[in-house]
Amino acid sequence: MKNHGRLRWNGWGRLGESFLATRARERAVLEELRTLLGRDPAPRREPAALDDVRLPPCKLAPEVLAALRAACGEDGVRTGVEERATHAAGKSLPDLLRLRRGEIERAPEVVVYPPDEGAVASVLRLAGEAGFAVVPFGGGTSVVGGVEPRSAPGQTGAVALDTARLDQLLRLDPESGTATFQAGIEGPDLERALGERGFTLGHFPQSFEHSTLGGWIATRSTGQLSNAYGGIERMLVAARVVTPRGVLRMPAVPRSAAGPDLNQLVLGSEGVLGVITEATVRVRPAPTVHDYRAVLFRDFEAGVATIRSVVDAGLPVAMLRLSDAAETEVGLRLRRDPTRRFDAASKLLGALERAGFGAERALLVYGVEGRDRARVRRDASRVRSLARRHGGLSLGRGPGRSWRRERFRTPYLRDWLLDHGLAVDTFETAVPWSQVTAAHEAVRRALDGALERHAGAGLAMAHLSHSYTDGACLYFTALWPLDASAELEQWTAIKHAATEAILAAGGTLSHHHGVGVDHLPWIGREKGALGIDALRAAKQSLDPGGLLNPGKLL
Amino acid sequence: MKNHGRLRWNGWGRLGESFLATRARERAVLEELRTLLGRDPAPRREPAALDDVRLPPCKLAPEVLAALRAACGEDGVRTGVEERATHAAGKSLPDLLRLRRGEIERAPEVVVYPPDEGAVASVLRLAGEAGFAVVPFGGGTSVVGGVEPRSAPGQTGAVALDTARLDQLLRLDPESGTATFQAGIEGPDLERALGERGFTLGHFPQSFEHSTLGGWIATRSTGQLSNAYGGIERMLVAARVVTPRGVLRMPAVPRSAAGPDLNQLVLGSEGVLGVITEATVRVRPAPTVHDYRAVLFRDFEAGVATIRSVVDAGLPVAMLRLSDAAETEVGLRLRRDPTRRFDAASKLLGALERAGFGAERALLVYGVEGRDRARVRRDASRVRSLARRHGGLSLGRGPGRSWRRERFRTPYLRDWLLDHGLAVDTFETAVPWSQVTAAHEAVRRALDGALERHAGAGLAMAHLSHSYTDGACLYFTALWPLDASAELEQWTAIKHAATEAILAAGGTLSHHHGVGVDHLPWIGREKGALGIDALRAAKQSLDPGGLLNPGKLL
Repeated sequence: MKNHGRLRWNGWGRLGESFLATRARERAVLEELRTLLGRDPAPRREPAALDDVRLPPCKLAPEVLAALRAACGEDGVRTGVEERATHAAGKSLPDLLRLRRGEIERAPEVVVYPPDEGAVASVLRLAGEAGFAVVPFGGGTSVVGGVEPRSAPGQTGAVALDTARLDQLLRLDPESGTATFQAGIEGPDLERALGERGFTLGHFPQSFEHSTLGGWIATRSTGQLSNAYGGIERMLVAARVVTPRGVLRMPAVPRSAAGPDLNQLVLGSEGVLGVITEATVRVRPAPTVHDYRAVLFRDFEAGVATIRSVVDAGLPVAMLRLSDAAETEVGLRLRRDPTRRFDAASKLLGALERAGFGAERALLVYGVEGRDRARVRRDASRVRSLARRHGGLSLGRGPGRSWRRERFRTPYLRDWLLDHGLAVDTFETAVPWSQVTAAHEAVRRALDGALERHAGAGLAMAHLSHSYTDGACLYFTALWPLDASAELEQWTAIKHAATEAILAAGGTLSHHHGVGVDHLPWIGREKGALGIDALRAAKQSLDPGGLLNPGKLL
Repeated sequence: MKNHGRLRWNGWGRLGESFLATRARERAVLEELRTLLGRDPAPRREPAALDDVRLPPCKLAPEVLAALRAACGEDGVRTGVEERATHAAGKSLPDLLRLRRGEIERAPEVVVYPPDEGAVASVLRLAGEAGFAVVPFGGGTSVVGGVEPRSAPGQTGAVALDTARLDQLLRLDPESGTATFQAGIEGPDLERALGERGFTLGHFPQSFEHSTLGGWIATRSTGQLSNAYGGIERMLVAARVVTPRGVLRMPAVPRSAAGPDLNQLVLGSEGVLGVITEATVRVRPAPTVHDYRAVLFRDFEAGVATIRSVVDAGLPVAMLRLSDAAETEVGLRLRRDPTRRFDAASKLLGALERAGFGAERALLVYGVEGRDRARVRRDASRVRSLARRHGGLSLGRGPGRSWRRERFRTPYLRDWLLDHGLAVDTFETAVPWSQVTAAHEAVRRALDGALERHAGAGLAMAHLSHSYTDGACLYFTALWPLDASAELEQWTAIKHAATEAILAAGGTLSHHHGVGVDHLPWIGREKGALGIDALRAAKQSLDPGGLLNPGKLL
């Protein structure tokens, strides 16, 4: 079982890991940000220490705790401050803002680690009897408040049900290319178990290092290589969900027309129906050749046109990620390193400008993977030739390698920026191709306005990733100086502006982050009143007592 | 609007169309079947004439009919015998057995053709007020009883709601590759509308000529070219459903993680939630090059291994259809034509046996499509080379052309066989690759036993089609001499044996036919009691009065 004690209770990932390597690099990045924002960085602020955090005592009666211990074992029921604090929030920006101030409005009464499916069922039974809420907790990486331990009126708080002990590969069917895992397994363990047998799932969300299979399913997650492997909804063959009324399970078949697909009710259910305990997923032979490269375009539109032509040609790429001009600029600048004798990024910037790739330039990173070197090379070269048709300048493998090296690292940067009084948040959606340009511009404009209004300064940028034949995901990043007296108000206003702009532009409320509590005010506009009613009715039938993750999704 | 009057009320397709061309060919086929079954064919039996059919008078009150006319127009409300008989059943074998005897146990009180979405809503409102059931009716090609006009206790019969007038292309977004249609449009009209603009949906179920977009969605249908285009669930971007409580609609985005995908609740809902009135679907550039060919293997296993290697290699084939030995044998024999001077099929059979392709031989038909001739050729040649590795003998384009020519024709054959006292039915499922061989053998064995027990003779055969990385569809056909005194009892027993064998072998209750009434007794085993409850709860929330298609699916 993974050890949550080593995870940061108030930041991303594990203790001792960070984004930047040296003090000198950190100073260089701060210097660039000062230029970009036109502001001096705030003095470094240390977050509140765990010792300063005061949690209300556990409200569960001793006999309830004893019953939980009978179900989960002595070590499977934990009431320590660090455990409760680590399970008190996910990793959204407002979560981190609150945690860093030592403000924990809601903590779970207790954290339980069921050792098996029977223990999960026992916890749910006790929840019904003793009247507490149960919040399923995988990696705890939700960025929409999905694991916040809310309880409904009349409930004695919430219990965090951590699936960390449900982390085994149960069956591999190499002939069918499917694997059945317990749902609490984390990304690296899952890929290791498959990799030893020559397979991969191919699901690499940015949270990969900490998030779990069950969490991916509950969130309707997608990974960075979705162009090759699809989102988690294409991988899932059959889920197994423990609900208060018993086990909901699906047949493990490649396709069925025997009524609506119940897996799809579980995908995106965010823990409100039950606890996902097992899942059978499609796996693929692990690639042995990885070819990641970058191309620079004179503008975003040329890059978008290239991606569309790659998708239309059906080229088997693993990923395509196109930064807009602002993100390209920030990315290049933050790579400048005046402390190095040979500063590659600075040299590149100069050369590019001389070659006519000016202020509107846009960087595309793409990857092709496979087991046949010649085929991977051929496909990568076809991407390059389509890019050239749109004026793309090949930048070779260097930026591709950087992207692969850093692809799970960027969330650490956020904690470090917060130390320096800078907030970063991301806003994502998906739109049809015909609305990509307008949506990109409208949301960027809305963010620019909101940053100016609510923070006096800021940077907004975007990239396009996860492309489909009919559209793509647009992923916006905003960075702004925090107003220490109104941090959450700033975030609320900026979030509101971004979300309203996304919906007005015809985008979905979320392409892969989920709903949780942060998107809850808008879910009715996405699903319609009838859609919400239908989903609530399904929840009510599986969880008539309303025990599971109250206050989320619906 | 299509004209249902030209459709056969008691058989497949349109009047005047049939499978076989000449009397001499018919005699040759009957002769082969006599040999295969070891039985003389029964004397030709003509089905009951429409004039002999007596339907109970329409039970709806005159003021209800008047209100329906106010909503749907004078011509949009029809009470004639042919209309009611044509809407009294789908096209399953038991449907045809009953219709041919002139036995119509349930007919709709009236058939309505709403001209627009508002009229659909009006019909549902009237249904609630006057207390009748509404059965959505697209092409009427259900083979599981999906359009049978059942009503619930307390309801004054059922009204068939024919979507034939909702048959327009509403919007094409060529940039995003999506098209929005009214859901009553039939396959050929839909492909024509797209084809004129250079696109295709790529959905070609055997019922293509008569079935509708809404029907495909409601059935969770899949098409013959699913290897390239996927099932209807991969094509659907956003459905629009008129329910008794209002319109359920989804955002038209390429992907979303804003909770469970409501499209997936509609896919396979078989008309029990509401009437699908519109759908936005993904369309693709129409292929201009079609390369269909056949390969013969020494046995079924070699063909299965070839299909798996094609799928694993990610080759962009449009279809792969492998007949087992029995189906290969019957197919070749029924193509023998002693009336022709040059009987190609007979010559081929002899040559093959001399080449060592004996009793276990299995025929694979495969197709590759695209817009780039060189690429299509290369991909087809890669299929051939994989087939050769498994001992496959290339039979060239002839059988491929035959398959394409006849691919929507075989259902007509069933009517002609019924004229001669022979029943044909099909049973389909999907299983993981690791269970394909065992499931094929078990279901074949179950069918052989049931045919012997209940018909004294018969032919059972199968093909594998619709292959996925993790498994495939197995499609069984059985043919038996009808016992005129116990036709339905024979069918019930044979259906029961096939279905039990399918479920025991780990297969799904249906890969693409649906549930309707015929699979209803087994749906609980597929979905589990909790799954059924969740779906029923969703239905109840959208259709609290239980107006829509009672007695189906759940």
